[in-house]
Amino acid sequence: MPTIDVCFSPALYPFIKKEGKQITVVMDVLRATTSFCTAFDYGAKAIVPLDSIDLAKKYKDQGYPVAAERDGLKPDFADFSNSAFDFMVPGLEGKTIYYTTTNGTAAISLALQSGQVAIGSFINVPAISGWLIEQQQNVVLLCAGWKNTFCLEDTLCAAAIAETLLADTRFITRDDSTLAALMLWQSCNRSPEALIKQSSHYQRLVRLGYEKVLPYSLQIGISKAIPVMENDIIINLAKTNSNKPE
Amino acid sequence: MPTIDVCFSPALYPFIKKEGKQITVVMDVLRATTSFCTAFDYGAKAIVPLDSIDLAKKYKDQGYPVAAERDGLKPDFADFSNSAFDFMVPGLEGKTIYYTTTNGTAAISLALQSGQVAIGSFINVPAISGWLIEQQQNVVLLCAGWKNTFCLEDTLCAAAIAETLLADTRFITRDDSTLAALMLWQSCNRSPEALIKQSSHYQRLVRLGYEKVLPYSLQIGISKAIPVMENDIIINLAKTNSNKPE
Repeated sequence: MPTIDVCFSPALYPFIKKEGKQITVVMDVLRATTSFCTAFDYGAKAIVPLDSIDLAKKYKDQGYPVAAERDGLKPDFADFSNSAFDFMVPGLEGKTIYYTTTNGTAAISLALQSGQVAIGSFINVPAISGWLIEQQQNVVLLCAGWKNTFCLEDTLCAAAIAETLLADTRFITRDDSTLAALMLWQSCNRSPEALIKQSSHYQRLVRLGYEKVLPYSLQIGISKAIPVMENDIIINLAKTNSNKPE
Repeated sequence: MPTIDVCFSPALYPFIKKEGKQITVVMDVLRATTSFCTAFDYGAKAIVPLDSIDLAKKYKDQGYPVAAERDGLKPDFADFSNSAFDFMVPGLEGKTIYYTTTNGTAAISLALQSGQVAIGSFINVPAISGWLIEQQQNVVLLCAGWKNTFCLEDTLCAAAIAETLLADTRFITRDDSTLAALMLWQSCNRSPEALIKQSSHYQRLVRLGYEKVLPYSLQIGISKAIPVMENDIIINLAKTNSNKPE
């Protein structure tokens, strides 16, 4: 039976037991993976995750659209910040975006070493879970966290996906972190806003003036995006977009 | 104000922010740190944590009392296993025990790189918390876990200590892991047995036939031990022992 593991930090990822094929779902809810889903909802064709700011700059110099963030802030040269709001714009249809962030893109690079990689956020929980259920492979829910430390918002999102998968009785869980994540999710009655407002990452967003993205980021299921890595780029397997005219 | 951080795994310890002096409390509830407290309660004078089985063997060959465990089992040469029950014996008074385990002793070595080290378990929560409150230094509650993965029982013990420290209003907490640990602790109404019985580490103990140690290990406050590292050995700062005739 396919297993579910929640991984609280990229630094713990090497210690997850690997047995057979697995899909790693990367979550960086505040903000990269929510922004990826939003960009796809607004018609983006692909997202190319980049590890370094230097690489992002090179793509910018060659005329490509670039999203970038370091320590919560957008470098001057970038077209987009790491906020979902930046991608709610006309003209995104068919575009490929080159993207680098403090935590999200590094977690993706790490996950790529162990098989297929997908992108999770609260806004696409039903869409990505539906796709994972179709695959029937082992699932690792990788919380990007903040500089390798544990983050509540990613953990709660992992729990929301784990709970959806476990409703399909063919999945089993075996680790204490999944159990703990599910308990946290259930103890806030699946309404994580008040709890996430206590989190260190949210406090950081407030200091940077970006806190408005929180209520948007917590709307479970408003995105139909199924972002999956293929040949080092993220594409959207959803048949229709949520916000693009069809 | 002194801070409290909960660290879910030795692999996350390097990412804890260090500011000023700190005391790291190592928890390996099932079983090393509960056993250390028990040995002190029965009169042991000191415990010398050893990183390797080879080293433990050398001490045994020289006639010293040795406790050892790897993957849950006692190597043949050792005098004591890693079970608290092994130390509930007469004749321990004044003895120094050489001790190596899969997770606990490795976590201690790691913690020693960052300042003072103390030993926590459910059985000595009030004793160790009282001593920490006297010190008024930053506290890192380091869960030994199982081979660097997250373990529920150590996390709940960290929460029990964090809660006691936070009742002294001079302590503050700042990380999401402390918040999450406290939520888990409160959501099981501070009665962790049912929850820990679902944990992967407990299942491992059951497979090895060691599950009887659980109810003993969860009795908050039955031990007066205040085990603290001094010059690479663990000594007991408690003025009286719990079980030794006074």
